[in-house]
Amino acid sequence: MNALIVLAHPEPQSFNAGLKDVARDTLTARGYSVEVSDLYAERFNPVEGAERYVNRADPEVFAPLAEQRNAWKTGCLPAEVRREIDRLERADLVILQFPLWWHAQPAILKGWFDRVFVSGGLYTSRMRYDRGYFRGKRAICSITSGAPAETFGPGRRGGDPDTMLWPIQYSLHYMGFSVVPPFWSFGIQGHGFSYQDEGDFGAHLEAQKAAWSRRLRCIEQDEPIPFPGWADWSEDGRPVAFAPVA
Amino acid sequence: MNALIVLAHPEPQSFNAGLKDVARDTLTARGYSVEVSDLYAERFNPVEGAERYVNRADPEVFAPLAEQRNAWKTGCLPAEVRREIDRLERADLVILQFPLWWHAQPAILKGWFDRVFVSGGLYTSRMRYDRGYFRGKRAICSITSGAPAETFGPGRRGGDPDTMLWPIQYSLHYMGFSVVPPFWSFGIQGHGFSYQDEGDFGAHLEAQKAAWSRRLRCIEQDEPIPFPGWADWSEDGRPVAFAPVA
Repeated sequence: MNALIVLAHPEPQSFNAGLKDVARDTLTARGYSVEVSDLYAERFNPVEGAERYVNRADPEVFAPLAEQRNAWKTGCLPAEVRREIDRLERADLVILQFPLWWHAQPAILKGWFDRVFVSGGLYTSRMRYDRGYFRGKRAICSITSGAPAETFGPGRRGGDPDTMLWPIQYSLHYMGFSVVPPFWSFGIQGHGFSYQDEGDFGAHLEAQKAAWSRRLRCIEQDEPIPFPGWADWSEDGRPVAFAPVA
Repeated sequence: MNALIVLAHPEPQSFNAGLKDVARDTLTARGYSVEVSDLYAERFNPVEGAERYVNRADPEVFAPLAEQRNAWKTGCLPAEVRREIDRLERADLVILQFPLWWHAQPAILKGWFDRVFVSGGLYTSRMRYDRGYFRGKRAICSITSGAPAETFGPGRRGGDPDTMLWPIQYSLHYMGFSVVPPFWSFGIQGHGFSYQDEGDFGAHLEAQKAAWSRRLRCIEQDEPIPFPGWADWSEDGRPVAFAPVA
């Protein structure tokens, strides 16, 4: 089995990097082969735009999806996009490890979605959702937040975790991944660097790492989030009249 | 009155750029002074990271929020962050104009949130939500999507527009903005460049532009989205027992 960890934190000593190490070590010990896309360390460019394409389908007007389709068709994908796709192709399990910034993933990881999930190559109008390119693979988000756990939930000050992850997790579902419930680390303060803390906070960090390691010991058993699929929709995308079998 | 349009599309001939022109012209005709942050044209760097800070609070370990607070305190904000804050300070109305990429804003606009909403300067644990820095200002998202309108909604294939905008709109609320309901342009295909199309599709684009212009004619009257505020939460961020007055 192969795993890919996509890490989106600027600091190698961060708790996010620590969780990446926990995942790598736990999965390696279980016999996985583990790759890491360290987006900051590899200087991934998240800005989809004309400069990313040398051989343009239309040199005059830049239409992002048209250029993605052309780059795929001609075999001229940007090198870092090709690299990320190759890593995804090898992976049975994909872990997105990131801090929650403005109720979403950091820009560098948002741009990874924008650029790597190539139109025409990795999805088409038919090859999506439960017919998606990466069907059969699992994905999970591991997210840190500075705010304490009790502030998160429907109606609570920090907002509902499920709502804020919807754009990310539905996008993974769109690509065919079976998305299992996320792993949250709350109360990870800005100074929460795993090699610097002591006392209660240090204990909290260690407990989170242990919980993450335990979660990864049998992640293959986790039930995916039940997103709707093609059987649930009419041709024009509306829910069909009968409920899907649970 | 002053307006700021933040545009996040890589192509100057795009329909998004066309909607930016409509907003600029409509608001200018109404007596507004209008500024535009064209993130692609200005080459905004969306990646928050160590390289953005010359004078570090901690040169060894990069903690994003700590460095934001230090840069604010010492008056050494990155120049493009300072520029965006100055524009926001002048604006009574802020328009975010962007295409929906992976159920969210493009990375370049996500990074605008990550970098411009400076910790310690533009928000603190108390200066948030209805006590936010930008209270009294209005914000609106104008979003384009290639998928047709009927595929969007709760349970529909494209997903629920309110859910997918929650992270963006709640973040604007967090900063104190009164966020009015978004303006959606559905069915804007990848080749939907306003200067190239004809027939039905051209008519659709023109109708959308006209609708956007009409919307902006009395946007000051629009009721903000009723997000919860401090009166709705206990000290630890849970909803209080009584419902807020509608």
